[in-house]
Amino acid sequence: MTTELSIFESPVKPEWIDYNGHMNDACYVVVFATALNNFIDQIGMDAAFRTRHQVSLYTLQSAVHYLQEVKEGEPLKIFAQLLEHDSKKLRLVLTMRHADTGVDLALMETLLLHMDMSIKRASAFLPATREQLEHLHARQASQPWPAQAGRGIALRRPA
Amino acid sequence: MTTELSIFESPVKPEWIDYNGHMNDACYVVVFATALNNFIDQIGMDAAFRTRHQVSLYTLQSAVHYLQEVKEGEPLKIFAQLLEHDSKKLRLVLTMRHADTGVDLALMETLLLHMDMSIKRASAFLPATREQLEHLHARQASQPWPAQAGRGIALRRPA
Repeated sequence: MTTELSIFESPVKPEWIDYNGHMNDACYVVVFATALNNFIDQIGMDAAFRTRHQVSLYTLQSAVHYLQEVKEGEPLKIFAQLLEHDSKKLRLVLTMRHADTGVDLALMETLLLHMDMSIKRASAFLPATREQLEHLHARQASQPWPAQAGRGIALRRPA
Repeated sequence: MTTELSIFESPVKPEWIDYNGHMNDACYVVVFATALNNFIDQIGMDAAFRTRHQVSLYTLQSAVHYLQEVKEGEPLKIFAQLLEHDSKKLRLVLTMRHADTGVDLALMETLLLHMDMSIKRASAFLPATREQLEHLHARQASQPWPAQAGRGIALRRPA
């Protein structure tokens, strides 16, 4: 079984292109956000589940690495890798890849916090969600982390 | 003279609100991108300048820290701080603040690369741009860097 988890597929839309003739940097994040919503559905926390259990996921921090330009019409795929999680947080990398060439175009790393929306406070994952995360973690345990994971911004890369 | 550089002002628009009833995480980035374009104009690299000199700025990496929720209609201001730059890169923090309470809502740190668009390669800032950056850097030299500058994502903050 593959360790890859596919969460998004689309060609680059004309409205994502900016004055440089390539996909706009903010649009990468909009596309990653759509993919992230698909991921949240895939781990069982879809809208019906969130409403029924009064839970949600809040983003605490995210980081985007822009690797390659991409132009209108080029086919995108996004894959999710669960790096780690604890009782109420999960840390994820989404990789955007060119669907034909397989070249990595961008990565978004993100840190999400599970919320009890009835009291608007952080809370432990529900057992159903925890099971899904543990299952995914086991499935992806052999997948190496991308080099960009955890990396902050600096003017020069450390040697 | 204040060291603050104001680059954006708007109330939170209804279309920025998501299913959690607060501003959507991707919309923060869209708003920061608009503010960043205003910053680029303010350092003299507006559309006319870019066309005339065949230059542009590409985003290499960005990081967003979500600090506080914000709801429809609340007034936002964004300020830019130039952390550092070299001959062809600049590193910037944009701080989103509640315009009434002064509370910090979010930060975006970003690393930009100056491009010669005639050959699509990284190139040194033009003298006019370098002067603007040096002027701004001198003006903000006494301003401390935010605690989040350079910080990567981790499941737990270092003690």
